[in-house]
Amino acid sequence: MKAYRLTIAEASELISGGKLTPTELLESVFGRIERLEPKLEAWVSLDKEGAMDTAEGLTVEAEEGMLRSPIHGIPIGVKDIYYTEGIKTTMGSPLYRDFVPSYDAETVKVIKEAGAVIPGKTETTEFAAFDPAPTRNPWNLEHTPGGSSSGSAAAVSSGMVPAALGSQTGGSVIRPAAFCGIVGMKPTYDLINRCGVFPLSWSLDHVGFFTRSVEDARIMLDVLAGKSMTQVSAPEIETVAPRLGLLRGYFQENAHEEVWLGLEAAVEKLRDAGAEVLETPLPESFEVVHAAYSLIFASEAASVHEEEFRRRRSEYRLKMRSQIAAGLLVPASAYLRAKRIRGRFIMEVEALLRGVDCVLTPSSVTPALRGLESTGDPAFNSPWSFCGFPVISLPCGLTKDELPLGIQFTGRPFREGELLAAAGWCEGVLKFPNTPRDP
Amino acid sequence: MKAYRLTIAEASELISGGKLTPTELLESVFGRIERLEPKLEAWVSLDKEGAMDTAEGLTVEAEEGMLRSPIHGIPIGVKDIYYTEGIKTTMGSPLYRDFVPSYDAETVKVIKEAGAVIPGKTETTEFAAFDPAPTRNPWNLEHTPGGSSSGSAAAVSSGMVPAALGSQTGGSVIRPAAFCGIVGMKPTYDLINRCGVFPLSWSLDHVGFFTRSVEDARIMLDVLAGKSMTQVSAPEIETVAPRLGLLRGYFQENAHEEVWLGLEAAVEKLRDAGAEVLETPLPESFEVVHAAYSLIFASEAASVHEEEFRRRRSEYRLKMRSQIAAGLLVPASAYLRAKRIRGRFIMEVEALLRGVDCVLTPSSVTPALRGLESTGDPAFNSPWSFCGFPVISLPCGLTKDELPLGIQFTGRPFREGELLAAAGWCEGVLKFPNTPRDP
Repeated sequence: MKAYRLTIAEASELISGGKLTPTELLESVFGRIERLEPKLEAWVSLDKEGAMDTAEGLTVEAEEGMLRSPIHGIPIGVKDIYYTEGIKTTMGSPLYRDFVPSYDAETVKVIKEAGAVIPGKTETTEFAAFDPAPTRNPWNLEHTPGGSSSGSAAAVSSGMVPAALGSQTGGSVIRPAAFCGIVGMKPTYDLINRCGVFPLSWSLDHVGFFTRSVEDARIMLDVLAGKSMTQVSAPEIETVAPRLGLLRGYFQENAHEEVWLGLEAAVEKLRDAGAEVLETPLPESFEVVHAAYSLIFASEAASVHEEEFRRRRSEYRLKMRSQIAAGLLVPASAYLRAKRIRGRFIMEVEALLRGVDCVLTPSSVTPALRGLESTGDPAFNSPWSFCGFPVISLPCGLTKDELPLGIQFTGRPFREGELLAAAGWCEGVLKFPNTPRDP
Repeated sequence: MKAYRLTIAEASELISGGKLTPTELLESVFGRIERLEPKLEAWVSLDKEGAMDTAEGLTVEAEEGMLRSPIHGIPIGVKDIYYTEGIKTTMGSPLYRDFVPSYDAETVKVIKEAGAVIPGKTETTEFAAFDPAPTRNPWNLEHTPGGSSSGSAAAVSSGMVPAALGSQTGGSVIRPAAFCGIVGMKPTYDLINRCGVFPLSWSLDHVGFFTRSVEDARIMLDVLAGKSMTQVSAPEIETVAPRLGLLRGYFQENAHEEVWLGLEAAVEKLRDAGAEVLETPLPESFEVVHAAYSLIFASEAASVHEEEFRRRRSEYRLKMRSQIAAGLLVPASAYLRAKRIRGRFIMEVEALLRGVDCVLTPSSVTPALRGLESTGDPAFNSPWSFCGFPVISLPCGLTKDELPLGIQFTGRPFREGELLAAAGWCEGVLKFPNTPRDP
């Protein structure tokens, strides 16, 4: 297998066994990037020279038997809303075209210290909201990879990097993971330090990441949040079939036909393999969750941009501009009521999760849409960003047109170990062929 | 001395020495209440029978040598926005005229368990905001006692109870304490559980209390927050003259003439006794603090009442009604910006407090105003409610018309022990004759 195709776990084993060096891995990765980037446009900027230097240092360390962590020497893409010291960070906006941060985001610092190599910054929609990035879907160049973490998802899916950092305020990790046929995860709200990640709506913003396996998601979480979050999921637990709650109602009514059929087929496989799948009713407050979510989202996004917006309105792209304008009109009492609805929803989802290991729904309303005008609808993801519970998406099948479908698992807050265990078990059953044909 | 005149510390010593019983103390207190209440109107409701029963039980316990705490057998007034199980709790509003809570506020539970006797509920302005209570100032019946904790302040000042619970969102403890010539304290925001205290503006609401000495304030804090907050202030520390920061600027410019002269005179006495008093400049963000405070106050108050207000607008009194109406117009972006200003102000006040033990200002803009139409201006108190830092007010002198003046000390968050130590030292120097002539 080509080095660029390896998962983190596979590459890490080769590196620790002296059979692969960080430099060799990065060379393979850059070969891949250079070949596919003209078609995919996943990267805002690449830093081959800096990355090669880092990789060489890590190669020396590895040869001396000094391995910093399971991501020692692993190339990891970083979404362009994460501050990177000395490296341009554009937020996907002309307003930040020439912005070069003087420090690293906390998460960037953490992965660097753990031995990650950062080949470059990945494309994002404007300010991680709705104005699309130029990135294309590796499964079909005519389709969107989803957003807002468009470049990170496309880069991991196409074999450019084994993992990448993304962020999610509505569905910006889970949806592109589903559209691109890879694993996406956003841990519990506030579990991972957001310092240095440009805010979109701070009550809803989550750090997240993309990988090609659940095992790699666990490695990423270990590095970003510390072992305590994942240790529950010792491999032996994964051999126990999970108890899953299937949410129908809103999800079934609004899902694209192939999305729901894909979910039913996946659920059937999981049942056949021994999973217990219960029909779990949606909590009462679910009815107002999207409205409340939108009020918080709009208010906080408007608040972040308020001053700049008054001076430079025309430099915002269309969707962000109307989003901020709308947010400036929300009354504080509506914002505060939305916050109270959030409190109620959190309690009700907690109650819902008492009887099951996690609940499942489709990862997206539709498969990846044709055209790059829209990155798709986050409606199946935003409720979990709203309550802040941990979510992971696995690829679970393909549409007739060979576009990936995803299954979304939501677990208990700060119990990502259990969520990863259940997802790991399901991954073994679903056996998704997670590689698109080369575009 | 009459029993009703005793401080908590004095009464507690007599009770533990078997020289006074909780029943005797309560009888003395009720004698006092019955004599003065027609003139002062400090109480919404009295529960003599229930209180006597409680006092008798505590008397038996005391005789058996079982003393629950330093407030064992001490009568403590409770502001009528604190939920009291089975006892009418009106919030000073016709809307809650007949409301009888089914549980005690956390604080009420705590003082009851510590052996407090609750003779009744004290008058509050409507919803602890600006529409006045009927209560009069014990120093001069033609004047307001201040508010919103009007009844609690008047009751402690006039010798009806040695201590009472109040609450502060702007200046609702410190201002009436100053107007009534007693000690008032509001500890750090969130230090004391607000559960069961009817919210006015939850980001700004504080539990607070009135006593007749700093020693009693420490006893109250010990009971409400647990010893850890006060243990720093072991008596020996109080013998060390504190380092105080005098804030002029806004305060000097806006203070009533007698208020500022009173403060200067008090500062002079403190200096003569050995305190170091530095001139401390106001932080930069102070300029926007009142505006930001008002936005948060109005937004949250409107949010609390929104639904009820739409149905029963006419049942709100005038000031609360216009407050809610105004709050409903605040945009969320303004609310959120005010919250950010708060963050900045907190940092700047923390920096300010690095060089001193606490900062001092007058406790109120004016002495107690003539007439009952207004409870006075909270402008000297609301900045400290905004940042949530602990505050204590001591009486420090009298105006020509024999109305009390107060001095306000603001300390570091969660360091109430140090604040109490400094205030205790100053109390010893200022030697305020804290008893008004009987009205």
